[in-house]
Amino acid sequence: MVPVYVPPEVWEFKKRIAGVRPTSGARHERELPRGKHELQLYTLGTPNGCKASILLEELHDVIGVEYDGWRVSLVDGDQYGSEFVKMCPSSHIPLLVDRGVDPPIRVFESGAIVVYLVEKFGFYMPKESPVECTNWIFWGHAVGPVFANFGHFFCTTKIRDAIDYFACETKRFLAVLDLHLQDRRYVCGDEYTAADMVIFPMVRGLDVFYGAATFLALDDEYPEIKRWRTSVDTRAAVRRGLRVAGFGLDAIDERHEKKDFILP
Amino acid sequence: MVPVYVPPEVWEFKKRIAGVRPTSGARHERELPRGKHELQLYTLGTPNGCKASILLEELHDVIGVEYDGWRVSLVDGDQYGSEFVKMCPSSHIPLLVDRGVDPPIRVFESGAIVVYLVEKFGFYMPKESPVECTNWIFWGHAVGPVFANFGHFFCTTKIRDAIDYFACETKRFLAVLDLHLQDRRYVCGDEYTAADMVIFPMVRGLDVFYGAATFLALDDEYPEIKRWRTSVDTRAAVRRGLRVAGFGLDAIDERHEKKDFILP
Repeated sequence: MVPVYVPPEVWEFKKRIAGVRPTSGARHERELPRGKHELQLYTLGTPNGCKASILLEELHDVIGVEYDGWRVSLVDGDQYGSEFVKMCPSSHIPLLVDRGVDPPIRVFESGAIVVYLVEKFGFYMPKESPVECTNWIFWGHAVGPVFANFGHFFCTTKIRDAIDYFACETKRFLAVLDLHLQDRRYVCGDEYTAADMVIFPMVRGLDVFYGAATFLALDDEYPEIKRWRTSVDTRAAVRRGLRVAGFGLDAIDERHEKKDFILP
Repeated sequence: MVPVYVPPEVWEFKKRIAGVRPTSGARHERELPRGKHELQLYTLGTPNGCKASILLEELHDVIGVEYDGWRVSLVDGDQYGSEFVKMCPSSHIPLLVDRGVDPPIRVFESGAIVVYLVEKFGFYMPKESPVECTNWIFWGHAVGPVFANFGHFFCTTKIRDAIDYFACETKRFLAVLDLHLQDRRYVCGDEYTAADMVIFPMVRGLDVFYGAATFLALDDEYPEIKRWRTSVDTRAAVRRGLRVAGFGLDAIDERHEKKDFILP
């Protein structure tokens, strides 16, 4: 018999869990790198990180928006550098700093960055249904931790009850999205919007990041998601956005102009 | 030796987990109740549900905003009724329907409701730093699933690794907030804003909902949160907001006007 675990009265931190300590604040002095453009993006090609780079690449293609993109190495603790923490107290990526205004504006949390950029540039938010777009941006933001927790337990543990719990939650989210997409080309209708850019990387991550496409029956049970995912995945701006501080062989560590994507 | 769990190639749904099925859509025909006001709120006094009712009560106190508030009984499956799902595909509470416009606007996800209401009425978003407020609204929205998952494993399981994982994550969020509040009366500075209304119920839920104040050393380790929480908790509008479709002895099932809060 395995003894039943009885939690202590007060939880004690003993060792880092999935790389995390239950603390906040800066751990070392370090300035953020800074490029020539007004918009500075500090990110990593995780499902959350991609949202910002994809939107910025889309904005580049439609109105020539430029930005400097920098890799934040979580394993090296870049997110605990003093200036990073000053700009982003939670040490989460992505972080956007807009130096085109004085004082510079810090924008953290992927969903907040997306809202900031669509409002600043006036693109990718449907004019006739901006509220519906915001609904789905927040929905996508809540999906993030759930899918990430699924990934944690599926990829790094053998805890059946936790894997079952998050598989069930994850598939519920997928079922909601699939049903919603039955009557629509994109999340907000015929038009490709910021909501697609927020939700697409999360769904893609279940496959590419966590290797759970088969486990979750991603292609078999959710045909509308499959169709939608392909249409988003093949966009030129999306392909570039996924490469910014990404993990593939074609990843680029820094993005300053479009020709950075041309590999030697 | 307990055999190590080997996940199947394809996950199979066997029984509901924490009340959840991995499906979407309506399960029965049911119209939503409708009151005389333009704003209809369908909610339950969970940490997420409270955000909307607290903001609406604050807006009532400052500019007399009225709304009809209705209890959504999750155990009775109200969230799977046909009109609820039509308005909120994810079957999550809270749901706001604005019938003051034609066609009515549906707003779902607690964060989206908060953004919608502060923009509609122009209150509780700091004029000089609206972006910072949005940052923290999204931060609070991402906290939601993490705290809820902590609550699930802490309250209903004895899975040590999952409890440890979510305790660590939860305390990291608390440490971020506590450090941030060291220099500020409220989340966005001297001014009480929508960001406080979004984050307060999540923190309170760790104590009141999950009974984890001692386990997480909520009062001992996070003095700034304790100070801030008290100052929010004692506001008249917050006290009322927590009672709408709440769980206490003073809870009210329906809210149509302020005098509904006066118990017989």
